[in-house]
Amino acid sequence: MTAVKSTLPEPARKVAGDALQSTLVDLLGLSLIAKQMHWNIVGPRFRSIHLQLDEVVATARTYADTVAERSSALGLPPDGRPETIAAACTLPGPKDGWVRDTDVVQLIVDVLEAAIGRLRERIAATAEPDPVTQDLLISLTAELEKQRWMFDAENWPRND
Amino acid sequence: MTAVKSTLPEPARKVAGDALQSTLVDLLGLSLIAKQMHWNIVGPRFRSIHLQLDEVVATARTYADTVAERSSALGLPPDGRPETIAAACTLPGPKDGWVRDTDVVQLIVDVLEAAIGRLRERIAATAEPDPVTQDLLISLTAELEKQRWMFDAENWPRND
Amino acid sequence: MTAVKSTLPEPARKVAGDALQSTLVDLLGLSLIAKQMHWNIVGPRFRSIHLQLDEVVATARTYADTVAERSSALGLPPDGRPETIAAACTLPGPKDGWVRDTDVVQLIVDVLEAAIGRLRERIAATAEPDPVTQDLLISLTAELEKQRWMFDAENWPRND
Amino acid sequence: MTAVKSTLPEPARKVAGDALQSTLVDLLGLSLIAKQMHWNIVGPRFRSIHLQLDEVVATARTYADTVAERSSALGLPPDGRPETIAAACTLPGPKDGWVRDTDVVQLIVDVLEAAIGRLRERIAATAEPDPVTQDLLISLTAELEKQRWMFDAENWPRND
Amino acid sequence: MTAVKSTLPEPARKVAGDALQSTLVDLLGLSLIAKQMHWNIVGPRFRSIHLQLDEVVATARTYADTVAERSSALGLPPDGRPETIAAACTLPGPKDGWVRDTDVVQLIVDVLEAAIGRLRERIAATAEPDPVTQDLLISLTAELEKQRWMFDAENWPRND
Amino acid sequence: MTAVKSTLPEPARKVAGDALQSTLVDLLGLSLIAKQMHWNIVGPRFRSIHLQLDEVVATARTYADTVAERSSALGLPPDGRPETIAAACTLPGPKDGWVRDTDVVQLIVDVLEAAIGRLRERIAATAEPDPVTQDLLISLTAELEKQRWMFDAENWPRND
Amino acid sequence: MTAVKSTLPEPARKVAGDALQSTLVDLLGLSLIAKQMHWNIVGPRFRSIHLQLDEVVATARTYADTVAERSSALGLPPDGRPETIAAACTLPGPKDGWVRDTDVVQLIVDVLEAAIGRLRERIAATAEPDPVTQDLLISLTAELEKQRWMFDAENWPRND
Amino acid sequence: MTAVKSTLPEPARKVAGDALQSTLVDLLGLSLIAKQMHWNIVGPRFRSIHLQLDEVVATARTYADTVAERSSALGLPPDGRPETIAAACTLPGPKDGWVRDTDVVQLIVDVLEAAIGRLRERIAATAEPDPVTQDLLISLTAELEKQRWMFDAENWPRND
Amino acid sequence: MTAVKSTLPEPARKVAGDALQSTLVDLLGLSLIAKQMHWNIVGPRFRSIHLQLDEVVATARTYADTVAERSSALGLPPDGRPETIAAACTLPGPKDGWVRDTDVVQLIVDVLEAAIGRLRERIAATAEPDPVTQDLLISLTAELEKQRWMFDAENWPRND
Amino acid sequence: MTAVKSTLPEPARKVAGDALQSTLVDLLGLSLIAKQMHWNIVGPRFRSIHLQLDEVVATARTYADTVAERSSALGLPPDGRPETIAAACTLPGPKDGWVRDTDVVQLIVDVLEAAIGRLRERIAATAEPDPVTQDLLISLTAELEKQRWMFDAENWPRND
Amino acid sequence: MTAVKSTLPEPARKVAGDALQSTLVDLLGLSLIAKQMHWNIVGPRFRSIHLQLDEVVATARTYADTVAERSSALGLPPDGRPETIAAACTLPGPKDGWVRDTDVVQLIVDVLEAAIGRLRERIAATAEPDPVTQDLLISLTAELEKQRWMFDAENWPRND
Amino acid sequence: MTAVKSTLPEPARKVAGDALQSTLVDLLGLSLIAKQMHWNIVGPRFRSIHLQLDEVVATARTYADTVAERSSALGLPPDGRPETIAAACTLPGPKDGWVRDTDVVQLIVDVLEAAIGRLRERIAATAEPDPVTQDLLISLTAELEKQRWMFDAENWPRND
Repeated sequence: MTAVKSTLPEPARKVAGDALQSTLVDLLGLSLIAKQMHWNIVGPRFRSIHLQLDEVVATARTYADTVAERSSALGLPPDGRPETIAAACTLPGPKDGWVRDTDVVQLIVDVLEAAIGRLRERIAATAEPDPVTQDLLISLTAELEKQRWMFDAENWPRND
Repeated sequence: MTAVKSTLPEPARKVAGDALQSTLVDLLGLSLIAKQMHWNIVGPRFRSIHLQLDEVVATARTYADTVAERSSALGLPPDGRPETIAAACTLPGPKDGWVRDTDVVQLIVDVLEAAIGRLRERIAATAEPDPVTQDLLISLTAELEKQRWMFDAENWPRND
Repeated sequence: MTAVKSTLPEPARKVAGDALQSTLVDLLGLSLIAKQMHWNIVGPRFRSIHLQLDEVVATARTYADTVAERSSALGLPPDGRPETIAAACTLPGPKDGWVRDTDVVQLIVDVLEAAIGRLRERIAATAEPDPVTQDLLISLTAELEKQRWMFDAENWPRND
Repeated sequence: MTAVKSTLPEPARKVAGDALQSTLVDLLGLSLIAKQMHWNIVGPRFRSIHLQLDEVVATARTYADTVAERSSALGLPPDGRPETIAAACTLPGPKDGWVRDTDVVQLIVDVLEAAIGRLRERIAATAEPDPVTQDLLISLTAELEKQRWMFDAENWPRND
Repeated sequence: MTAVKSTLPEPARKVAGDALQSTLVDLLGLSLIAKQMHWNIVGPRFRSIHLQLDEVVATARTYADTVAERSSALGLPPDGRPETIAAACTLPGPKDGWVRDTDVVQLIVDVLEAAIGRLRERIAATAEPDPVTQDLLISLTAELEKQRWMFDAENWPRND
Repeated sequence: MTAVKSTLPEPARKVAGDALQSTLVDLLGLSLIAKQMHWNIVGPRFRSIHLQLDEVVATARTYADTVAERSSALGLPPDGRPETIAAACTLPGPKDGWVRDTDVVQLIVDVLEAAIGRLRERIAATAEPDPVTQDLLISLTAELEKQRWMFDAENWPRND
Repeated sequence: MTAVKSTLPEPARKVAGDALQSTLVDLLGLSLIAKQMHWNIVGPRFRSIHLQLDEVVATARTYADTVAERSSALGLPPDGRPETIAAACTLPGPKDGWVRDTDVVQLIVDVLEAAIGRLRERIAATAEPDPVTQDLLISLTAELEKQRWMFDAENWPRND
Repeated sequence: MTAVKSTLPEPARKVAGDALQSTLVDLLGLSLIAKQMHWNIVGPRFRSIHLQLDEVVATARTYADTVAERSSALGLPPDGRPETIAAACTLPGPKDGWVRDTDVVQLIVDVLEAAIGRLRERIAATAEPDPVTQDLLISLTAELEKQRWMFDAENWPRND
Repeated sequence: MTAVKSTLPEPARKVAGDALQSTLVDLLGLSLIAKQMHWNIVGPRFRSIHLQLDEVVATARTYADTVAERSSALGLPPDGRPETIAAACTLPGPKDGWVRDTDVVQLIVDVLEAAIGRLRERIAATAEPDPVTQDLLISLTAELEKQRWMFDAENWPRND
Repeated sequence: MTAVKSTLPEPARKVAGDALQSTLVDLLGLSLIAKQMHWNIVGPRFRSIHLQLDEVVATARTYADTVAERSSALGLPPDGRPETIAAACTLPGPKDGWVRDTDVVQLIVDVLEAAIGRLRERIAATAEPDPVTQDLLISLTAELEKQRWMFDAENWPRND
Repeated sequence: MTAVKSTLPEPARKVAGDALQSTLVDLLGLSLIAKQMHWNIVGPRFRSIHLQLDEVVATARTYADTVAERSSALGLPPDGRPETIAAACTLPGPKDGWVRDTDVVQLIVDVLEAAIGRLRERIAATAEPDPVTQDLLISLTAELEKQRWMFDAENWPRND
Repeated sequence: MTAVKSTLPEPARKVAGDALQSTLVDLLGLSLIAKQMHWNIVGPRFRSIHLQLDEVVATARTYADTVAERSSALGLPPDGRPETIAAACTLPGPKDGWVRDTDVVQLIVDVLEAAIGRLRERIAATAEPDPVTQDLLISLTAELEKQRWMFDAENWPRND
């Protein structure tokens, strides 16, 4: 069923659609992982990181909505169902149970770096086919890199 | 690691914790399913249902946070990771791709009825062990039953 | 026509539905009586009671909506038509024309006490069949008892 | 008891007072009827009309208050008690139970047309005796005619 | 100096201008008198009337601005200087010093009645020459009559 | 197609409809002209007039919406399409390109005077057939006359 | 008269200016067309589309302002006068009179597709000469494509 | 002096009243203790805990008001005077002078646990006599248990 | 009648009371003069000064209220009646009729300088008897000196 | 433990610290006493005084926080624990149980006068050692004297 | 010390970092220069330009924060210390003392043009190495060019 | 050029002006230093101190504006240009590059202590010549001493 037409010609639509679908999966995964740590963190920095994680969740949810609706606008139905996220999301995630605060910070830095690395590839890939999609991915990358810096600054001195 | 102590004695804590964990999975599943339909619905009633679904999402997200934090408050780390939702959530869900508006309404009625049925059992189970948890589940049930009515009224005349 | 299905089995639905329908009639009657006194009060305490009565109206209207929608959510169409209120409402009401402020205070105390007494019976009746409905009636009772106290404190020293 | 004096001479006061009292009854009746349909509507356009009816209720309540207070300001105690509305209100009303959406739209158009017709007569009658009252009725008519148009546009193509 | 032109022909402009100028003087006088009583009232109803008087002040100031700017819009410079108000304002006013609450209520009723009586004459006078000015005076009269009712209701039982 | 019925009898409806349609064209024209000057003004008073023009635009847009919806409410479909405005609007307008600030003030005074003169005729014409429409035109005239005064005061000393 | 200097060299300024001027005409035309349909729509989906069209109007007006001010910032006076829009706007538009809801949806999809197609060409044309202008056109395209999707989803199943 | 009547029969009123009075003392004590630590905390986590303590204060004050007014509503005058709190409050409290951050966290956990333990007993005691009071105590317990979890999570690893 | 007692001993009360009463007269006079110029200004700087004068009015009204209530708090009934202002206010004021913008600026500078000069004397006089009153006069002086600077800066180059 | 250094030399710090500590005790005592009367007042002026007392509570709480934090800022740990208030607060307080409205007004006047008298001494004492602390006490005195006036005006005619 | 890692490879990071650091210096310089003129401007257009300059300050401060945090996010510590700004900022600046309004406008146009010219070079330089940084510089340029136009339009007719 | 006259005689004006100019330089320096640390801080307390520093920046900016405008109001043009700050500011400042969180806290304590010490001298110096200026410096000192306490409490146990 081709319910919604696209304003992009086909090959461009395919490239933009793939970039958006994989970004959607990453963002939904990120929102669930950050909430999980929001609930399970323990340690002296509990409150500070507990609050900061909710900003990550808010960013991830807002962009997930924008990314999915952009996909719909291009005539490609987005897929954000639980089983899709579980199957397609490749971001590192936490074990179950309580997590100490220093481990939370390290984990969120790793998750954000993984997501940013994949976004940079999609920015390059979409420049030609659809600058509108590229512009959205650029804005998202700026937000995630800002979040990554804040956790990384908090992560100092690093263990590695 | 027993990081957070509980203010409940053990058997009561176990009952309340189980009720909260399975409710958390249902609510996170519901939020993802409703968003999926929010993005993929097509048909003449698009706008009206598109907006109404976001109210379901908002309800599900707010209560998921309250339920998970109640679990933490009882000393039981909640589990809302993607793989847990995919594995444990038994609510009926949509196929991928565009969904016509009448099918969306039927589907969300079915999802809400399944979630409400399971909540009613947990309300009965938690009355004795932890009236605080029960009170939270009662409020949640009231919200979901109101949403269910609205979609069911919209669903008339039913096909069945 | 059974347009909306219920998530409650039949005998429970009947008990909850009766409690909600008679509460709805009381609340709509209360909102009209309080407005009537809001407009017709005279005496030195005019402004103070004129304003306080509007808080009663606001409470009655908000809960009337919640109670009626709860009834719909249980698959029972609520009835709040003028003729139904006039026929079924048993709360004491004012004569027509101006009412002096001390009489207004006494009257509203009487009206609230009558409504509260009937609510306490319904709280007992709905505990088993539907704790969700019971929870709603408990909240409403708390609000009306608070309003009753304020008018009763204002009513001191009583004439009786 | 003539508690509040008037700033109008007697015959003018009588004309304005009658116009305001019958308008008050119509508005309170309208608010109850629109709420009744707000709760009992079923069908695919449920949400859209459910919301629109609440705008009618808000308009009716706001103007009922203004009209009643204008009556008081003229030294005429307004009468908005349940039994008065049931006895004096001549607007057509719904049966009890669920109402399908198309019937709701037709009914509200009929109710509004009846109310508007009676208002136009009162606008003519009050021009001379009290232009302040007339100005209020003119504003109210503009609001109700706007609501009537919206439901009538929604009512197209009409069955008649 | 005829700095601002008018959109009204001359005789009409004169009538409207006179009505506006004398209304301006009344409103500025009313705002000062009500503030004076706001500060000097004593007695058990202090707080209630203290607050209500500030609503009269707010109404008087808002309409004074609208009336003066309407005069300017008609090409007639308004005059609201202290010496003009003292010379031209014929409203009854308070003595200096503390005023007991019952006297305040009686005084404000008298002041408002005097102002309303003069406004009703101007409404009649401006109907033909400038319906725009008349419409403004009608709105103002409605506001002042509402305030008068509230103080008169509070004034019951009257001493007279 | 007579989609929306009217609550006015025919000759009255025709008079009110004509008044509303020509007012709609004037208001849409005014909003475009004022925006054009908002963007193209140059000179030392740039900022002050740039901001003031946006208030004219806001007034024109708000009343255009009210006027058009009043026309629909009377069963007469309003016409605000670009080609209709270009053909029917008789207000004086600017040349293209930059406009110096003193010329802008003179131009907007002329435009507003033209619009007001036509509105005064329509106020007289609609008094009998539809006082509701007349009331709307009176409010609009008051707004435009206030704006005209402000620009005319700013225009002093005039060149003429 | 070259009142405002540009920060761009000449050929770049010409390209950017042309793109902005034709975008301005499209956006002003779109705002008038969407308002026209906002007022004249009839049919069962009246309310839903009536509200959605106002979001299109708001988007078109906001971007028209930004686009015109960007043109001024480049030293090119924008032209948004009624006669310019009527002459230069090539978007498809509605007939006069009432329009049924399904036709409105089809029409707005067509209008938006035409506008988007022209914007995509200007995005390509301005990339080199002025990336600041290009960035603005990209944001606008994202907004219009989102609106187009929503109406297109509502348009399903299509008649064609 | 029995100024305010109760809507509860006597034995029930006594049980509910005792539960409310001792809860009031605990809440006022908690609000003073938390403020004391808010002002006297020192150490690297100063800001984080300083802010979190004010949330405890806000919760304690809000519920103290609700609990005391519920007592009044039952016809039992609440007692929250300084000497009563000092005499009746059994919660553990801080020494005077500066307190290091880790000691603050441990202390607030102890205070909250003591308060929660006493609340759980009152929830059981009031279930039968007054479900309205019980419902209020349940809500309060949920809030305090959430606060306790947050401080306990922050308290990890515990010294004990 | 000595209705309100003072917390100051007599000689101090007299000094503070005189300072407050004469400040009240100045502030009410200032508010009327600034409004008069707000309405009657003409010239190219109309809008800018028209708005700035309303900030003076707002400051004068706010401080008049604070000053009068401070007088009441000291047991001295303030006097702000029209005849008192006309008799006691020594600030320079405008002629009636239109005033050109440059004259308005010069006039408001003169009025503010006169008021500030008198305030500086009262600041010195009240330092010993009542530092609370002095503190209020200091705050007021800071506000008026800021306003005076702004008009004086606008007044440059001065004619004198 | 001298955790926080001071920016004041020792003798000055001692004087300022004593003034702040005794003010803190008075304010916390005042907030508890006013709340106690807020809950226990009965009589015809219930609502008016009930509301006014909450303004006293809000003032007392806000200044208690500012005063305590000023003490901390001077390196002196403030002491606001329940036992300290009970032991050190010398303000007159209410008996337990219901209090009639006229007694409440008299009592709050007495309490405020006692607090103000002690503040005036501290204002004199801190002028030299720390004008920053003095400035804070002056602001607080102005607020309490305003509250005292309002209750004293309400207290007229006094019984004494 | 390399505290924060970057998500960009080295040469790209160097280019983006240099662009951000020099932009930061320009923005901090611009904010100080605009504030300086905000305080020191004199002349008839004082108020209008005084307000407009604060919009420049707000823009400069907001973007300075974004630019500096982007630099941190790339692992390059930004440098905004006073001595750095004084040494590195090459924007033209005002003399000390009062500045007449026409000179202020000319100066701010020059400052903005200098800043914009340097930004355009950095937009070109960062396109390849980091489109995220480029996107930020494009947005900033659009804002500054809009501000430049407004001052330039106000600057007409230019002296040069 | 003596553009703005002063309301203070000469020697007083000189003393007040010097105090204000040096305070302005300190505040602008403080705002830049605090922002620099806001961007460059690293370590586990990153987020908490990052946020707290922005409160210092907001305080410094708000008071810088007030101080500079007070100087203008006294007829003395303030000087806040980059080169003036760099030359005149004697507050200790950070090195460039990342700064660890404990060093940030120590540094900001030192900076605030230096600024407070200089302010206390100016408070003494301005008491006689201009109590209005003194009052402003007192308020500012209270704010900075509160900030200093918070950082000093966070600084415990100190290294020294």
